Amino acid sequence: MAPAVKALFFDVFGTLVDWRGGVAREAKAILAPQGYALDWFAFADAWRGEYQGAMEEVRSGRLPFCRLDILHRRNLDRILPHFRADTLAAADRALLNAAWHKLDAWPDVPSGLARLRQRYLLAPVSNGNISLMVDLARRNHLPWDAILGAEFAGDYKPKPRVYLAAAAAFDLKPDQCMMVAAHSSDLAAAAALGLHTGFVARPDENGPGFGESAPSVPVDVEAKDLGDLADQLAA
Amino acid sequence: MAPAVKALFFDVFGTLVDWRGGVAREAKAILAPQGYALDWFAFADAWRGEYQGAMEEVRSGRLPFCRLDILHRRNLDRILPHFRADTLAAADRALLNAAWHKLDAWPDVPSGLARLRQRYLLAPVSNGNISLMVDLARRNHLPWDAILGAEFAGDYKPKPRVYLAAAAAFDLKPDQCMMVAAHSSDLAAAAALGLHTGFVARPDENGPGFGESAPSVPVDVEAKDLGDLADQLAA
Repeated sequence: MAPAVKALFFDVFGTLVDWRGGVAREAKAILAPQGYALDWFAFADAWRGEYQGAMEEVRSGRLPFCRLDILHRRNLDRILPHFRADTLAAADRALLNAAWHKLDAWPDVPSGLARLRQRYLLAPVSNGNISLMVDLARRNHLPWDAILGAEFAGDYKPKPRVYLAAAAAFDLKPDQCMMVAAHSSDLAAAAALGLHTGFVARPDENGPGFGESAPSVPVDVEAKDLGDLADQLAA
Repeated sequence: MAPAVKALFFDVFGTLVDWRGGVAREAKAILAPQGYALDWFAFADAWRGEYQGAMEEVRSGRLPFCRLDILHRRNLDRILPHFRADTLAAADRALLNAAWHKLDAWPDVPSGLARLRQRYLLAPVSNGNISLMVDLARRNHLPWDAILGAEFAGDYKPKPRVYLAAAAAFDLKPDQCMMVAAHSSDLAAAAALGLHTGFVARPDENGPGFGESAPSVPVDVEAKDLGDLADQLAA
Protein backbone atom coordinates (compact mmCIF):
# COMPACT_ATOMS: atom_id res chain seq x y z
CA MET A 1 0.00 0.00 0.00
CA ALA A 2 2.60 2.55 1.10
CA PRO A 3 4.52 2.71 -2.21
CA ALA A 4 1.39 3.91 -4.01
CA VAL A 5 0.84 6.76 -1.58
CA LYS A 6 2.37 10.00 -2.85
CA ALA A 7 0.82 12.58 -0.54
CA LEU A 8 -0.18 12.82 3.10
CA PHE A 9 -3.06 15.10 4.07
CA PHE A 10 -3.26 16.21 7.67
CA ASP A 11 -6.03 17.21 9.95
CA VAL A 12 -4.64 20.02 12.08
CA PHE A 13 -6.76 20.95 15.15
CA GLY A 14 -6.15 18.19 17.68
CA THR A 15 -4.08 16.05 15.33
CA LEU A 16 -1.10 18.40 14.95
CA VAL A 17 -1.78 21.25 17.35
CA ASP A 18 -3.15 21.50 20.88
CA TRP A 19 -6.13 23.80 20.38
CA ARG A 20 -7.39 23.37 23.96
CA GLY A 21 -4.19 24.36 25.71
CA GLY A 22 -3.51 27.18 23.27
CA VAL A 23 -6.96 28.74 23.42
CA ALA A 24 -6.99 28.49 27.22
CA ARG A 25 -3.54 30.13 27.42
CA GLU A 26 -4.41 32.99 25.08
CA ALA A 27 -7.80 33.59 26.72
CA LYS A 28 -6.14 33.87 30.11
CA ALA A 29 -3.48 36.22 28.77
CA ILE A 30 -6.12 38.54 27.29
CA LEU A 31 -8.91 38.30 29.87
CA ALA A 32 -7.20 37.80 33.23
CA PRO A 33 -5.62 41.30 33.22
CA GLN A 34 -9.14 42.68 32.80
CA GLY A 35 -10.30 40.92 35.95
CA TYR A 36 -11.92 37.86 34.43
CA ALA A 37 -11.36 34.70 36.42
CA LEU A 38 -12.75 31.92 34.26
CA ASP A 39 -12.11 28.22 34.02
CA TRP A 40 -9.91 28.74 30.97
CA PHE A 41 -10.15 25.15 29.78
CA ALA A 42 -13.92 25.25 30.12
CA PHE A 43 -13.87 28.41 28.02
CA ALA A 44 -11.82 26.65 25.32
CA ASP A 45 -14.14 23.66 25.43
CA ALA A 46 -17.23 25.83 25.15
CA TRP A 47 -15.79 27.65 22.14
CA ARG A 48 -14.81 24.41 20.43
CA GLY A 49 -18.24 23.06 21.32
CA GLU A 50 -19.83 25.45 18.82
CA TYR A 51 -17.49 24.29 16.02
CA GLN A 52 -19.39 21.50 14.32
CA GLY A 53 -22.73 23.27 14.51
CA ALA A 54 -21.36 26.36 12.81
CA MET A 55 -19.75 24.36 10.02
CA GLU A 56 -22.94 22.38 9.57
CA GLU A 57 -24.69 25.61 8.59
CA VAL A 58 -22.27 25.81 5.66
CA ARG A 59 -22.20 22.10 4.85
CA SER A 60 -25.99 22.02 4.70
CA GLY A 61 -26.10 25.00 2.37
CA ARG A 62 -27.97 27.24 4.84
CA LEU A 63 -24.97 29.59 4.97
CA PRO A 64 -22.65 30.41 2.04
CA PHE A 65 -19.08 29.33 2.59
CA CYS A 66 -17.08 31.63 4.83
CA ARG A 67 -13.69 30.96 6.33
CA LEU A 68 -13.29 29.45 9.76
CA ASP A 69 -12.03 32.70 11.30
CA ILE A 70 -15.50 34.11 10.65
CA LEU A 71 -17.22 31.12 12.21
CA HIS A 72 -14.87 31.21 15.20
CA ARG A 73 -15.79 34.84 15.79
CA ARG A 74 -19.50 34.08 15.53
CA ASN A 75 -19.03 31.23 18.00
CA LEU A 76 -17.09 33.45 20.38
CA ASP A 77 -19.90 35.99 20.39
CA ARG A 78 -22.29 33.17 21.26
CA ILE A 79 -20.38 31.83 24.24
CA LEU A 80 -19.21 35.06 25.86
CA PRO A 81 -22.54 35.64 27.66
CA HIS A 82 -22.20 32.24 29.32
CA PHE A 83 -18.96 33.48 30.86
CA ARG A 84 -20.46 36.83 31.87
CA ALA A 85 -18.32 38.59 29.27
CA ASP A 86 -21.05 40.08 27.08
CA THR A 87 -19.52 43.51 27.39
CA LEU A 88 -16.11 42.53 26.02
CA ALA A 89 -14.92 45.09 23.46
CA ALA A 90 -14.71 44.24 19.76
CA ALA A 91 -10.93 44.73 19.79
CA ASP A 92 -10.57 42.16 22.55
CA ARG A 93 -12.84 39.77 20.71
CA ALA A 94 -10.61 40.10 17.66
CA LEU A 95 -7.56 39.42 19.82
CA LEU A 96 -9.23 36.36 21.31
CA ASN A 97 -10.17 35.11 17.87
CA ALA A 98 -6.53 35.26 16.86
CA ALA A 99 -5.77 32.68 19.57
CA TRP A 100 -6.50 29.98 16.99
CA HIS A 101 -3.57 31.31 14.94
CA LYS A 102 -1.22 30.87 17.90
CA LEU A 103 -1.59 27.21 18.79
CA ASP A 104 1.40 25.03 19.55
CA ALA A 105 2.12 21.75 17.83
CA TRP A 106 2.34 18.55 19.82
CA PRO A 107 6.03 17.85 20.52
CA ASP A 108 6.36 15.02 17.97
CA VAL A 109 5.02 17.06 15.05
CA PRO A 110 7.91 19.15 13.68
CA SER A 111 10.39 16.26 13.61
CA GLY A 112 7.77 13.82 12.34
CA LEU A 113 6.75 16.06 9.45
CA ALA A 114 10.40 16.73 8.57
CA ARG A 115 10.91 12.98 8.19
CA LEU A 116 7.69 12.41 6.26
CA ARG A 117 8.50 15.27 3.91
CA GLN A 118 11.51 13.34 2.60
CA ARG A 119 9.18 10.81 1.03
CA TYR A 120 5.74 12.37 0.61
CA LEU A 121 4.04 15.56 -0.47
CA LEU A 122 2.49 17.12 2.62
CA ALA A 123 -0.51 19.40 2.96
CA PRO A 124 -2.97 20.31 5.66
CA VAL A 125 -6.51 19.32 4.76
CA SER A 126 -8.06 21.15 7.65
CA ASN A 127 -11.22 23.15 8.17
CA GLY A 128 -9.02 26.08 9.15
CA ASN A 129 -8.58 28.87 6.62
CA ILE A 130 -5.39 29.51 4.69
CA SER A 131 -4.09 32.41 6.79
CA LEU A 132 -4.68 30.39 9.93
CA MET A 133 -2.77 27.43 8.48
CA VAL A 134 0.05 29.74 7.38
CA ASP A 135 0.36 31.25 10.85
CA LEU A 136 0.42 27.82 12.50
CA ALA A 137 3.01 26.63 9.98
CA ARG A 138 5.30 29.59 10.63
CA ARG A 139 4.93 29.23 14.39
CA ASN A 140 5.59 25.50 14.45
CA HIS A 141 7.81 24.93 11.40
CA LEU A 142 5.33 22.80 9.50
CA PRO A 143 6.90 22.16 6.06
CA TRP A 144 3.82 22.18 3.83
CA ASP A 145 4.01 21.83 0.07
CA ALA A 146 0.68 23.61 -0.27
CA ILE A 147 -2.22 24.72 1.92
CA LEU A 148 -5.28 22.74 0.88
CA GLY A 149 -8.50 22.05 2.82
CA ALA A 150 -11.75 23.87 3.42
CA GLU A 151 -10.99 27.33 2.05
CA PHE A 152 -9.49 25.86 -1.11
CA ALA A 153 -12.50 23.57 -1.59
CA GLY A 154 -15.16 26.05 -0.49
CA ASP A 155 -16.82 23.63 1.93
CA TYR A 156 -16.07 21.94 5.24
CA LYS A 157 -14.97 18.42 6.09
CA PRO A 158 -16.31 15.80 6.12
CA LYS A 159 -17.93 16.88 2.83
CA PRO A 160 -16.36 14.77 0.04
CA ARG A 161 -15.37 17.81 -1.99
CA VAL A 162 -12.72 18.83 0.54
CA TYR A 163 -10.78 15.56 0.28
CA LEU A 164 -11.27 15.20 -3.47
CA ALA A 165 -10.21 18.77 -4.23
CA ALA A 166 -7.00 18.19 -2.28
CA ALA A 167 -6.14 15.05 -4.25
CA ALA A 168 -6.96 16.78 -7.53
CA ALA A 169 -4.79 19.78 -6.67
CA PHE A 170 -1.81 17.43 -6.47
CA ASP A 171 -2.85 15.63 -9.70
CA LEU A 172 -3.38 12.50 -7.66
CA LYS A 173 -6.11 9.91 -7.45
CA PRO A 174 -7.68 9.43 -4.00
CA ASP A 175 -5.87 6.11 -3.53
CA GLN A 176 -2.53 7.88 -3.97
CA CYS A 177 -3.29 9.99 -0.89
CA MET A 178 -3.51 9.27 2.82
CA MET A 179 -5.59 11.28 5.25
CA VAL A 180 -3.93 11.48 8.67
CA ALA A 181 -6.07 12.44 11.65
CA ALA A 182 -6.74 11.81 15.32
CA HIS A 183 -10.48 11.64 14.60
CA SER A 184 -12.21 8.52 13.31
CA SER A 185 -14.99 10.54 11.67
CA ASP A 186 -12.48 12.36 9.46
CA LEU A 187 -10.82 9.09 8.47
CA ALA A 188 -14.12 7.36 7.76
CA ALA A 189 -15.10 10.14 5.36
CA ALA A 190 -11.73 9.95 3.59
CA ALA A 191 -11.82 6.16 3.37
CA ALA A 192 -15.26 6.24 1.80
CA LEU A 193 -13.74 8.21 -1.09
CA GLY A 194 -10.85 5.80 -1.56
CA LEU A 195 -8.12 7.62 0.34
CA HIS A 196 -5.79 5.66 2.57
CA THR A 197 -6.06 6.48 6.25
CA GLY A 198 -3.60 7.00 9.06
CA PHE A 199 -4.76 7.36 12.64
CA VAL A 200 -2.64 9.24 15.15
CA ALA A 201 -3.56 8.87 18.81
CA ARG A 202 -4.23 12.08 20.74
CA PRO A 203 -5.81 10.62 23.86
CA ASP A 204 -5.74 13.94 25.75
CA GLU A 205 -6.96 16.26 22.99
CA ASN A 206 -10.10 17.34 24.83
CA GLY A 207 -8.56 17.17 28.29
CA PRO A 208 -6.77 14.36 30.14
CA GLY A 209 -8.23 11.08 28.92
CA PHE A 210 -10.71 12.79 26.61
CA GLY A 211 -9.46 12.04 23.15
CA GLU A 212 -9.28 9.10 20.79
CA SER A 213 -6.61 6.65 21.93
CA ALA A 214 -7.60 4.19 19.21
CA PRO A 215 -9.67 4.51 16.03
CA SER A 216 -13.30 3.38 16.05
CA VAL A 217 -13.20 2.62 12.31
CA PRO A 218 -10.87 0.48 10.18
CA VAL A 219 -7.71 2.37 9.19
CA ASP A 220 -4.66 1.49 7.13
CA VAL A 221 -2.11 2.67 9.67
CA GLU A 222 -2.52 3.26 13.40
CA ALA A 223 0.23 5.29 15.02
CA LYS A 224 1.08 6.52 18.50
CA ASP A 225 2.41 9.81 17.13
CA LEU A 226 4.00 11.25 13.99
CA GLY A 227 7.35 9.63 14.73
CA ASP A 228 5.63 6.27 14.86
CA LEU A 229 3.74 7.13 11.65
CA ALA A 230 7.05 7.93 9.94
CA ASP A 231 8.49 4.64 11.14
CA GLN A 232 5.52 2.71 9.78
CA LEU A 233 5.54 4.56 6.45
CA ALA A 234 9.27 3.89 6.12
CA ALA A 235 10.01 7.60 5.94
CA MET B 1 6.07 51.86 1.94
CA ALA B 2 8.03 48.73 2.76
CA PRO B 3 6.93 48.45 6.42
CA ALA B 4 3.30 48.11 5.38
CA VAL B 5 4.01 45.22 3.02
CA LYS B 6 3.41 41.87 4.71
CA ALA B 7 3.44 39.50 1.74
CA LEU B 8 5.30 39.14 -1.52
CA PHE B 9 3.56 37.49 -4.45
CA PHE B 10 5.73 36.11 -7.23
CA ASP B 11 5.27 35.54 -10.88
CA VAL B 12 7.08 32.30 -11.65
CA PHE B 13 7.63 31.59 -15.38
CA GLY B 14 10.44 33.88 -16.44
CA THR B 15 10.65 35.73 -13.14
CA LEU B 16 11.84 32.82 -10.97
CA VAL B 17 12.45 29.97 -13.41
CA ASP B 18 13.98 29.70 -16.87
CA TRP B 19 11.12 28.18 -18.87
CA ARG B 20 12.91 28.54 -22.20
CA GLY B 21 16.08 26.70 -21.26
CA GLY B 22 14.18 24.03 -19.33
CA VAL B 23 11.64 23.28 -22.03
CA ALA B 24 14.36 23.18 -24.69
CA ARG B 25 16.44 20.80 -22.54
CA GLU B 26 13.55 18.44 -21.80
CA ALA B 27 12.32 18.45 -25.41
CA LYS B 28 15.76 17.50 -26.62
CA ALA B 29 16.07 14.75 -24.00
CA ILE B 30 12.75 13.24 -25.06
CA LEU B 31 12.76 13.83 -28.82
CA ALA B 32 16.40 13.63 -29.92
CA PRO B 33 16.68 9.89 -29.12
CA GLN B 34 13.69 9.38 -31.46
CA GLY B 35 15.55 11.01 -34.31
CA TYR B 36 14.08 14.49 -34.10
CA ALA B 37 16.59 17.27 -34.81
CA LEU B 38 14.73 20.47 -34.01
CA ASP B 39 15.83 23.94 -33.06
CA TRP B 40 15.01 23.23 -29.40
CA PHE B 41 14.80 26.87 -28.40
CA ALA B 42 12.50 27.60 -31.33
CA PHE B 43 10.34 24.71 -30.11
CA ALA B 44 10.21 26.22 -26.61
CA ASP B 45 9.40 29.64 -28.06
CA ALA B 46 6.63 28.24 -30.26
CA TRP B 47 5.07 26.43 -27.32
CA ARG B 48 5.23 29.51 -25.12
CA GLY B 49 3.85 31.52 -28.05
CA GLU B 50 0.50 29.78 -27.64
CA TYR B 51 0.34 30.65 -23.93
CA GLN B 52 -1.52 33.96 -23.83
CA GLY B 53 -4.01 32.96 -26.51
CA ALA B 54 -4.98 29.81 -24.63
CA MET B 55 -5.45 31.66 -21.35
CA GLU B 56 -7.46 34.34 -23.11
CA GLU B 57 -10.04 31.68 -23.98
CA VAL B 58 -10.54 31.24 -20.24
CA ARG B 59 -10.25 34.90 -19.26
CA SER B 60 -12.88 35.83 -21.84
CA GLY B 61 -15.26 33.18 -20.58
CA ARG B 62 -15.24 31.19 -23.84
CA LEU B 63 -13.67 28.23 -22.03
CA PRO B 64 -14.39 27.20 -18.41
CA PHE B 65 -11.37 27.40 -16.15
CA CYS B 66 -8.98 24.51 -16.52
CA ARG B 67 -5.49 24.26 -15.08
CA LEU B 68 -2.45 25.30 -17.05
CA ASP B 69 -1.24 21.71 -17.55
CA ILE B 70 -4.34 21.20 -19.70
CA LEU B 71 -3.71 24.34 -21.72
CA HIS B 72 -0.04 23.44 -22.14
CA ARG B 73 -1.05 20.07 -23.54
CA ARG B 74 -3.54 21.66 -25.95
CA ASN B 75 -0.86 24.09 -27.05
CA LEU B 76 1.63 21.27 -27.55
CA ASP B 77 -0.80 19.42 -29.79
CA ARG B 78 -1.15 22.62 -31.83
CA ILE B 79 2.53 23.21 -32.43
CA LEU B 80 3.76 19.66 -33.03
CA PRO B 81 2.68 19.68 -36.71
CA HIS B 82 4.86 22.74 -37.30
CA PHE B 83 7.82 20.66 -36.20
CA ARG B 84 6.78 17.63 -38.31
CA ALA B 85 5.98 15.73 -35.12
CA ASP B 86 2.26 15.10 -35.66
CA THR B 87 2.75 11.37 -35.12
CA LEU B 88 4.26 11.70 -31.65
CA ALA B 89 2.68 9.20 -29.26
CA ALA B 90 0.39 10.31 -26.46
CA ALA B 91 2.82 9.00 -23.84
CA ASP B 92 5.59 11.15 -25.27
CA ARG B 93 3.31 14.17 -25.37
CA ALA B 94 2.56 13.63 -21.68
CA LEU B 95 6.29 13.42 -20.96
CA LEU B 96 6.90 16.61 -22.90
CA ASN B 97 4.11 18.36 -21.04
CA ALA B 98 5.80 17.48 -17.78
CA ALA B 99 8.81 19.55 -18.88
CA TRP B 100 7.10 22.59 -17.34
CA HIS B 101 7.30 20.83 -13.95
CA LYS B 102 11.08 20.46 -14.32
CA LEU B 103 12.27 24.00 -14.85
CA ASP B 104 15.31 25.37 -13.05
CA ALA B 105 15.30 28.56 -11.02
CA TRP B 106 17.57 31.44 -11.97
CA PRO B 107 20.68 31.23 -9.75
CA ASP B 108 19.73 34.15 -7.48
CA VAL B 109 16.30 32.74 -6.59
CA PRO B 110 16.79 30.19 -3.77
CA SER B 111 19.05 32.44 -1.69
CA GLY B 112 16.93 35.52 -2.43
CA LEU B 113 13.71 33.86 -1.35
CA ALA B 114 15.38 32.47 1.77
CA ARG B 115 16.28 36.04 2.77
CA LEU B 116 12.89 37.49 1.89
CA ARG B 117 11.14 34.76 3.85
CA GLN B 118 12.64 36.08 7.06
CA ARG B 119 10.54 39.20 6.74
CA TYR B 120 7.59 38.50 4.45
CA LEU B 121 4.98 35.88 3.72
CA LEU B 122 5.77 34.42 0.30
CA ALA B 123 3.51 32.85 -2.28
CA PRO B 124 3.59 32.26 -6.00
CA VAL B 125 0.80 34.09 -7.78
CA SER B 126 1.40 32.38 -11.09
CA ASN B 127 -0.79 31.10 -13.87
CA GLY B 128 0.72 27.67 -13.28
CA ASN B 129 -1.40 25.11 -11.48
CA ILE B 130 -0.79 23.96 -7.92
CA SER B 131 0.93 20.66 -8.73
CA LEU B 132 3.23 22.46 -11.16
CA MET B 133 4.13 25.04 -8.51
CA VAL B 134 4.71 22.27 -5.95
CA ASP B 135 7.05 20.40 -8.30
CA LEU B 136 9.03 23.56 -9.08
CA ALA B 137 9.23 24.38 -5.38
CA ARG B 138 10.56 20.94 -4.49
CA ARG B 139 13.07 21.00 -7.33
CA ASN B 140 14.37 24.48 -6.55
CA HIS B 141 13.83 24.83 -2.79
CA LEU B 142 11.29 27.64 -3.02
CA PRO B 143 10.05 28.23 0.56
CA TRP B 144 6.40 29.12 -0.08
CA ASP B 145 3.93 29.77 2.72
CA ALA B 146 1.07 28.80 0.42
CA ILE B 147 0.45 28.17 -3.27
CA LEU B 148 -1.89 30.88 -4.53
CA GLY B 149 -2.52 32.06 -8.09
CA ALA B 150 -4.67 30.97 -11.01
CA GLU B 151 -5.91 27.58 -9.83
CA PHE B 152 -6.82 28.98 -6.43
CA ALA B 153 -8.67 31.91 -8.00
CA GLY B 154 -10.22 29.98 -10.89
CA ASP B 155 -9.07 32.46 -13.54
CA TYR B 156 -5.84 33.63 -15.16
CA LYS B 157 -3.72 36.73 -14.63
CA PRO B 158 -4.02 39.56 -15.36
CA LYS B 159 -7.68 39.19 -14.31
CA PRO B 160 -8.13 41.15 -11.04
CA ARG B 161 -9.58 38.17 -9.23
CA VAL B 162 -6.24 36.35 -9.21
CA TYR B 163 -4.40 39.11 -7.34
CA LEU B 164 -7.31 39.92 -5.03
CA ALA B 165 -7.93 36.30 -4.08
CA ALA B 166 -4.28 35.96 -3.12
CA ALA B 167 -4.39 39.00 -0.83
CA ALA B 168 -7.66 37.82 0.71
CA ALA B 169 -6.26 34.34 1.38
CA PHE B 170 -3.62 35.93 3.57
CA ASP B 171 -6.19 38.22 5.25
CA LEU B 172 -4.41 41.19 3.74
CA LYS B 173 -5.51 44.28 1.90
CA PRO B 174 -4.01 44.77 -1.57
CA ASP B 175 -1.72 47.55 -0.29
CA GLN B 176 -0.21 45.13 2.23
CA CYS B 177 1.01 42.96 -0.66
CA MET B 178 3.66 43.36 -3.35
CA MET B 179 3.55 41.64 -6.72
CA VAL B 180 7.04 40.75 -7.94
CA ALA B 181 7.51 40.03 -11.64
CA ALA B 182 9.80 40.43 -14.61
CA HIS B 183 6.84 41.51 -16.75
CA SER B 184 5.46 45.04 -16.78
CA SER B 185 1.99 43.84 -17.81
CA ASP B 186 1.71 41.73 -14.66
CA LEU B 187 2.82 44.63 -12.47
CA ALA B 188 0.49 47.10 -14.16
CA ALA B 189 -2.47 44.84 -13.44
CA ALA B 190 -1.44 44.46 -9.80
CA ALA B 191 -0.80 48.18 -9.34
CA ALA B 192 -4.25 49.01 -10.71
CA LEU B 193 -5.71 47.03 -7.79
CA GLY B 194 -3.59 48.77 -5.18
CA LEU B 195 -0.82 46.23 -4.73
CA HIS B 196 2.76 47.40 -4.46
CA THR B 197 5.00 46.31 -7.30
CA GLY B 198 8.53 44.98 -7.56
CA PHE B 199 10.22 44.56 -10.92
CA VAL B 200 13.00 42.02 -11.35
CA ALA B 201 15.05 42.24 -14.53
CA ARG B 202 15.28 39.09 -16.65
CA PRO B 203 16.75 40.56 -19.82
CA ASP B 204 17.39 37.15 -21.39
CA GLU B 205 14.10 35.44 -20.56
CA ASN B 206 13.07 34.90 -24.17
CA GLY B 207 16.60 34.41 -25.47
CA PRO B 208 19.72 36.55 -25.22
CA GLY B 209 18.60 40.16 -25.11
CA PHE B 210 14.92 39.29 -25.41
CA GLY B 211 13.48 40.06 -22.04
CA GLU B 212 12.59 43.11 -19.97
CA SER B 213 15.72 44.78 -18.65
CA ALA B 214 13.67 47.65 -17.22
CA PRO B 215 9.97 48.12 -16.50
CA SER B 216 7.80 50.00 -18.97
CA VAL B 217 5.40 51.09 -16.23
CA PRO B 218 5.92 52.85 -12.89
CA VAL B 219 6.90 50.41 -10.14
CA ASP B 220 7.68 50.76 -6.44
CA VAL B 221 10.92 48.80 -6.52
CA GLU B 222 13.16 47.97 -9.47
CA ALA B 223 15.71 45.22 -8.85
CA LYS B 224 18.46 43.52 -10.79
CA ASP B 225 17.66 40.16 -9.21
CA LEU B 226 16.17 38.71 -6.02
CA GLY B 227 19.28 39.46 -4.00
CA ASP B 228 18.98 43.09 -5.00
CA LEU B 229 15.26 42.99 -4.17
CA ALA B 230 16.07 41.63 -0.71
CA ASP B 231 18.64 44.39 -0.22
CA GLN B 232 16.11 47.05 -1.18
CA LEU B 233 13.35 45.57 0.98
CA ALA B 234 15.77 45.39 3.93
CA ALA B 235 15.29 41.65 4.23
